Amino acid sequence: MKFNKILIANRGEIAVRIIRACRELGITAVAVYSEADRESLHVRLADEAYCIGPTASKDSYLNLTNIMSVATLTDCDAIHPGYGFLSENADFADICETCNISFIGPSSVAISRMGDKSVAKQTMKDADVPVIPGSDGLLEDLDDAIRVARDIGYPVIIKATAGGGGRGIRIAENEEMLIREITTAQQEAEKAFGNSGVYLEKYLTGMKHVEIQIIADKHGNVAHLGERDCSVQRRRQKLVEEAPCSIMTPELRNRMGMASVRAARAVNYSGAGTIEYLLGPDGQFYFMEMNTRIQVEHPVTEMITGIDLIKEMIAIAEGAPLSFKQEDIKFDGWAIECRINAEDSERNFMPSAGKIGFYLPPGGPGVRVDSAAYPQYVISPHYDSMIAKLIVWAPTREEAIARTRRALSEFMIEGVKTTIPFHLKLMNHPIFAKGTFDIKFLEDHDINGDSEPVADNGFSL
Amino acid sequence: MKFNKILIANRGEIAVRIIRACRELGITAVAVYSEADRESLHVRLADEAYCIGPTASKDSYLNLTNIMSVATLTDCDAIHPGYGFLSENADFADICETCNISFIGPSSVAISRMGDKSVAKQTMKDADVPVIPGSDGLLEDLDDAIRVARDIGYPVIIKATAGGGGRGIRIAENEEMLIREITTAQQEAEKAFGNSGVYLEKYLTGMKHVEIQIIADKHGNVAHLGERDCSVQRRRQKLVEEAPCSIMTPELRNRMGMASVRAARAVNYSGAGTIEYLLGPDGQFYFMEMNTRIQVEHPVTEMITGIDLIKEMIAIAEGAPLSFKQEDIKFDGWAIECRINAEDSERNFMPSAGKIGFYLPPGGPGVRVDSAAYPQYVISPHYDSMIAKLIVWAPTREEAIARTRRALSEFMIEGVKTTIPFHLKLMNHPIFAKGTFDIKFLEDHDINGDSEPVADNGFSL
Repeated sequence: MKFNKILIANRGEIAVRIIRACRELGITAVAVYSEADRESLHVRLADEAYCIGPTASKDSYLNLTNIMSVATLTDCDAIHPGYGFLSENADFADICETCNISFIGPSSVAISRMGDKSVAKQTMKDADVPVIPGSDGLLEDLDDAIRVARDIGYPVIIKATAGGGGRGIRIAENEEMLIREITTAQQEAEKAFGNSGVYLEKYLTGMKHVEIQIIADKHGNVAHLGERDCSVQRRRQKLVEEAPCSIMTPELRNRMGMASVRAARAVNYSGAGTIEYLLGPDGQFYFMEMNTRIQVEHPVTEMITGIDLIKEMIAIAEGAPLSFKQEDIKFDGWAIECRINAEDSERNFMPSAGKIGFYLPPGGPGVRVDSAAYPQYVISPHYDSMIAKLIVWAPTREEAIARTRRALSEFMIEGVKTTIPFHLKLMNHPIFAKGTFDIKFLEDHDINGDSEPVADNGFSL
Repeated sequence: MKFNKILIANRGEIAVRIIRACRELGITAVAVYSEADRESLHVRLADEAYCIGPTASKDSYLNLTNIMSVATLTDCDAIHPGYGFLSENADFADICETCNISFIGPSSVAISRMGDKSVAKQTMKDADVPVIPGSDGLLEDLDDAIRVARDIGYPVIIKATAGGGGRGIRIAENEEMLIREITTAQQEAEKAFGNSGVYLEKYLTGMKHVEIQIIADKHGNVAHLGERDCSVQRRRQKLVEEAPCSIMTPELRNRMGMASVRAARAVNYSGAGTIEYLLGPDGQFYFMEMNTRIQVEHPVTEMITGIDLIKEMIAIAEGAPLSFKQEDIKFDGWAIECRINAEDSERNFMPSAGKIGFYLPPGGPGVRVDSAAYPQYVISPHYDSMIAKLIVWAPTREEAIARTRRALSEFMIEGVKTTIPFHLKLMNHPIFAKGTFDIKFLEDHDINGDSEPVADNGFSL
């Protein structure tokens, strides 16, 4: 069944991204917005837009009742949840089904199984996907933790089963630290997620964060679209992503891709999903988690495959079979994404909300900008600080870095501090240029200090 | 020899395009500007910028002496002429050589031979490139014209040998008209170009304007990069270009491509060049002219081949061999370019210079914008009216049209009238959708009247 009308249960650049796909497909796009977002680009670009509550996310973008009311009253066929907010809420997927509205994403069962970290890990083990050595599921008590840690060896990492976004994570170098940290981790998890369950894993070093994009229809067809290297992270938040990964080989891609296809099959997955791995310099990889939604960094995959992931998600939810087979997927060139945040990267990434003045995104060959910003736009302090995603494509990694540098240098955003100076320095960093960085790269290197000063090529009007 | 510094002898979007390529190559970009262009984007983005004279083009962008002074005083290794202005001036190429500055383009001999239409035609005939039946070179007198016209049959077209941009062209349906028009054409040519020479050709109907991009190095390597369909023209000015051409076949592309390679070899061509043809529905094609420079519409070729033509031009001028062979060139997907002009397309494309207010180019997947505009930019009435080129890529022509429509609908330019409404209507036109239009399409069809009204999806802040 072809959709006539889709509600986009999100805001910012991803809402704009989904509206663009709807437009191109001839589908009516319905936006929802909080009181703070009345002047937002997603509201302006949508065919219809409805206010769903006050500024606080819990009252608007997380307000299931109001969102479902808009969807049913405006006769929407489907809801696209984007990322964040309700995108990995199994209840939301269930309620959509009850209301006879298609949830553009996997089943609630798949979301639940992957949302619970220890269940996810066991599912992966059963599917013969390599996992990080650690406890079999949740730790029973302190003795259990000590026994597992002795078994796998220190350092170990304690993770909350309900965790996400880097919260509820502790590292223990020895038994004394473990005893201390495990209690803290449990308390923190209870407080943050209402679930004190924690598990233990071997703490691996020198690892890259490499994830595989998978896509599956409702008829059992699953394909992978290669990897993204998301190792450039600050406090476990991704700042730069690229595809392909500089240490990838076709053989390793095939192994990681096939493992990811098995992972998707294990939960009867449908839609777009991402399997996140830690990848060591030895080519060993370990399952971290599966994200059962579209990712912020999906454009780098689109740039090297020519596949529009949002359109594919919509077609899959409509019941269409995948429009390609694994062997049809070709990887061409190199893509890099920089997340431009309203943060002062020279002052510890301090948030810098406020009103944008002059605004001019870069253009020209190989440059894509996904953003909800515009001249005079007011960035709300209430939501995520990302202003724009700058994505470039070029035939080689070296040219992609040069192009990213060029595009960053002409990206004009006045009125707020942004992470553009950080990205410019990163693009000039010798370790980034080599591509050998691991997830500790930004901890181990002071990008602001290490790099040559970058000439300010911007302009001010 | 690698260039350290390049002077860009142009303005507007093409100057910005060339600066972007220099940036990515690590080459210092030197801009020149007229007094009217002090606040222009090319001035702001360049590493250095110098005023070369008053507003009138003849005193600035055509001021050979001033441009050469800047180039020599600032130690430039090379000059890129862009399109228009001095780009097809053989003297300019010669003077560069004398000053020991590389002209990024072909030799002055190649420019001269292709710049004189009747010499060009004879050169093509000798190279076995099909030409339009007509006079062998310039007409001697009226008797000669009548004899040739009787021989090839009416209607015939009279062209000025020094002409360009549609000027100095007359059509005669019969002998009486021919006698009248030939005198007018000669007088017009004398007045416009200081050269009264005219020639005669069979006037063909139902033809497409299809051009082949060629690229040649200084070592005898020549390749073609496929075709562009530029049939959507108003008064011989291109408005929309696409690649590939919807009536193209691999066999025909190969024939047209090989003819174009012969054409380039015939004049020892080096650099990027374009051979323009008329292509009939029967697959017969006829040489019209060769443009010995980069074209406005070069991005559609870049989008389907992944090759950066400006970077290639620079590398060729540096003496490098072509970075690819003919068999390496793969054509992927479909690209469409819309020229967004500051013109009121609903009032006979009347120019609409003035100050831009709010400005926000479209973004998202498959969208490229080449422009020198920005918020509050003042469009000068003294130069060409193009504000921006919107180029989209998608896997298929149908998707490229849908994406163009989407991107046009979100392109926000306030303060001046633009051709965006025209392009939106064109994208909805059934004949454009079919791809069967010829160069008379816009004469034969009133796009404003024919099409369904298009909802205004823009927004105003």
